[in-house]
Amino acid sequence: MLLEKTFVDTITYRPGSVILYPGVSDMLYRLQSGLVRVHTMDDDGNGLTLRYVKPGEFFGEEALAGFDRTYFAEAVTDSTVDVINPALLSPEDNLEVSTHLVRILGRAYESIYRLVGKRLKSRIASELLELGQTALATPTADGAIMIYATHDELAAAVGSVRETVTKVVGELAREGVISAGYGKITLKNPEALKVIAQQ
Amino acid sequence: MLLEKTFVDTITYRPGSVILYPGVSDMLYRLQSGLVRVHTMDDDGNGLTLRYVKPGEFFGEEALAGFDRTYFAEAVTDSTVDVINPALLSPEDNLEVSTHLVRILGRAYESIYRLVGKRLKSRIASELLELGQTALATPTADGAIMIYATHDELAAAVGSVRETVTKVVGELAREGVISAGYGKITLKNPEALKVIAQQ
Repeated sequence: MLLEKTFVDTITYRPGSVILYPGVSDMLYRLQSGLVRVHTMDDDGNGLTLRYVKPGEFFGEEALAGFDRTYFAEAVTDSTVDVINPALLSPEDNLEVSTHLVRILGRAYESIYRLVGKRLKSRIASELLELGQTALATPTADGAIMIYATHDELAAAVGSVRETVTKVVGELAREGVISAGYGKITLKNPEALKVIAQQ
Repeated sequence: MLLEKTFVDTITYRPGSVILYPGVSDMLYRLQSGLVRVHTMDDDGNGLTLRYVKPGEFFGEEALAGFDRTYFAEAVTDSTVDVINPALLSPEDNLEVSTHLVRILGRAYESIYRLVGKRLKSRIASELLELGQTALATPTADGAIMIYATHDELAAAVGSVRETVTKVVGELAREGVISAGYGKITLKNPEALKVIAQQ
């Protein structure tokens, strides 16, 4: 648990607000509630999602090392963020931050593994399952999970482009695993998605 | 600087020795000298290099978080490794480890960025420049840098297969940027390689 004195501020951001820009920083951030997307851009200006930050998770960890930040952090839904002074972290807090770093490093290596070894369809299935566990997901009346996400956002998360993602989403919909509407996707058969994610 | 009491052991490994296997561990490792490759395998058994560990850098950091290790660590050259008990790290040591974690996380995100946004030729150029700063590199009589690396090893590092890497290496050699021999590649024009790496 982080000590009170380490908190500098608590700020709530509206969806689409940029919380952090590339640059220098000496503060660490922790998400209280909502969903934050950490992303960069390729040379053509296409977005590339590096990770989603869920409640309880940190971001802006380069402040610990005094490195420049090379990414953007953006509120996806209404997001409340604690601003933390890393110089005031206790040894227990530091262990919590290290554990967080090891976890997100593992997720980054998993992304590399999937980018190299998995088909786009598997990567999209995997991404939909992950988004299904964030603040973008709401349960539907018949027990399915509906996710608010555009094909552009999915493309940024799996390292592809919208046109190609639209084709694969159509394929998954024809197979009855999901259903797709404007800006939203319903996971009709998460078990089948899990199988596809592993292929 | 790490305190003496945190060291458990110091071990030297021969080239090709596996230092760490996937599994559980409670020790942290730091490379004294040599070069260590951290890698995993895709479903078809192809190697995928996650990162190279250079002298002074840590590996096995999942011990800090109590997570299972999901990768192999292998000595590429003769490598001397300190085994460290993470429970005995001082606050200063922990800060050093955190800084290391932030650095390798940044490198993992850079890999994701390159996998998504860069051509294979750029990724190979970038990899050759990085290997040129490791224990695999030796200066030649005429001031160039020679790297001991097979096309298989390059393929594992850039997320491709040997056949495709061989084609690109041939292309770079025809352009006069490198020269390639059996199991070794000479960087004849590092400046030109840097330009290609950014393309």
